[in-house]
Amino acid sequence: MDKIIRKGIAFDAKVLRQFDDLIREKGYKNRSEAIRDLVRMELVEQEMQNPEAQMMGTLTIVYEHHRHHVQDELTHIQHHHPDLIRSSLHIHINPDNCLEVIVLEGMVKNIQKLADEIIAAKGVKYGKIVMTSLT
Amino acid sequence: MDKIIRKGIAFDAKVLRQFDDLIREKGYKNRSEAIRDLVRMELVEQEMQNPEAQMMGTLTIVYEHHRHHVQDELTHIQHHHPDLIRSSLHIHINPDNCLEVIVLEGMVKNIQKLADEIIAAKGVKYGKIVMTSLT
Amino acid sequence: MDKIIRKGIAFDAKVLRQFDDLIREKGYKNRSEAIRDLVRMELVEQEMQNPEAQMMGTLTIVYEHHRHHVQDELTHIQHHHPDLIRSSLHIHINPDNCLEVIVLEGMVKNIQKLADEIIAAKGVKYGKIVMTSLT
Amino acid sequence: MDKIIRKGIAFDAKVLRQFDDLIREKGYKNRSEAIRDLVRMELVEQEMQNPEAQMMGTLTIVYEHHRHHVQDELTHIQHHHPDLIRSSLHIHINPDNCLEVIVLEGMVKNIQKLADEIIAAKGVKYGKIVMTSLT
Repeated sequence: MDKIIRKGIAFDAKVLRQFDDLIREKGYKNRSEAIRDLVRMELVEQEMQNPEAQMMGTLTIVYEHHRHHVQDELTHIQHHHPDLIRSSLHIHINPDNCLEVIVLEGMVKNIQKLADEIIAAKGVKYGKIVMTSLT
Repeated sequence: MDKIIRKGIAFDAKVLRQFDDLIREKGYKNRSEAIRDLVRMELVEQEMQNPEAQMMGTLTIVYEHHRHHVQDELTHIQHHHPDLIRSSLHIHINPDNCLEVIVLEGMVKNIQKLADEIIAAKGVKYGKIVMTSLT
Repeated sequence: MDKIIRKGIAFDAKVLRQFDDLIREKGYKNRSEAIRDLVRMELVEQEMQNPEAQMMGTLTIVYEHHRHHVQDELTHIQHHHPDLIRSSLHIHINPDNCLEVIVLEGMVKNIQKLADEIIAAKGVKYGKIVMTSLT
Repeated sequence: MDKIIRKGIAFDAKVLRQFDDLIREKGYKNRSEAIRDLVRMELVEQEMQNPEAQMMGTLTIVYEHHRHHVQDELTHIQHHHPDLIRSSLHIHINPDNCLEVIVLEGMVKNIQKLADEIIAAKGVKYGKIVMTSLT
């Protein structure tokens, strides 16, 4: 757990009022918490630009399970990258479609490459990834 | 499972060449699959603009488990919305930090509101959501 | 010009160090300036969600000027919306392609609709819009 | 001007119907035009990942003109990069605020660096950049 430091930040009165309204509506209990979240998001955005950075990626895909042996193919791809895959979660959306969330950990470039490969697999309808920091 | 229709699409020769290179690198086996993925992503982007649309959301959050009783708070929030929460997945990143993936289903506006509330909870460092279609 | 208010914000020591590094690299002279920029971006993101909000939009398009009478078409579309179009800037990229930047002002939904129409015009290769606040 | 090639693409009947509805609403006259726009956007997304790629960037900033000699500072920064700046467009939003659009051309990493520096200048409230391809 990290030390907390208090710093004075200068705001325009009007902007501060609008920001306080926004974060109250979003459910924040105090302003510091909301500012810290913005700062952390900015750091994560920066980290993602570095292909060698160690991060986690949450890949969400939707696929039709009865087409093209897609589950065999997904299992096959994932077993070739045991070092990158931390865990996965499966949900039956409806009779035709599945949603799968795959949590990856490793270098940004390797996460991106594996995500591309999974999304490109026949039967996978589309996918999206979000990256998060390890720290 | 849906009927397949074949349509003729006119491409610039040069753009087609660049696209074929890109999708081969990403791991696509054929061009139709890659075009279909683009089309579906476009439809999902559109659907997200409608606050009343029924969709699924994958929310990824990172939090410090030993701070502010954050797990109690997260459990408390989630139990107030049993209708919106489908499943969740938990990963211990390191001694201080946890990653949690929460899969939500419901109207876009309700998913967004609950995601905002979870991200705003004290101890949650940041969060990101991706939306996917039910169809 | 607005009144300036100073507020104490609590940061984790490590996050603050990383943020200070990042903003120095980006060219910021002080931390308040960088925090204020994050806060304003967050407010703009929120404002964009409201279809009735009055904003400005910067639309960048690339088109092939010698195809499909695209310039006539663009002029035609723009003259039908004199109330939405503030100004435009034209650049000859190379013998085939033009870049045009069109600055729009009005309700978010009207800006989006006109941008869609311009991007969809025959000969326009693609386009992207960014929204900014009037305040 | 480039040669046109026609290719058969296989679509799911339902997805095709939804896509046709969407593009009609956006103003597209035909499906090929809409598919080509998606493909070009995908190529631009890819190109942006390469820091050495030659591209164009449209930077939109909002600033308060009577604060911190911001115009002198912006002029100063821009004159240090005559090779990167193609053109700019200025709009008086209201008594306090100006919107400026600066069109940049050069390597992705240099465009990004200059954009960061301009956004970080004192008095610039925020800024956003979109990248476009030269081809």
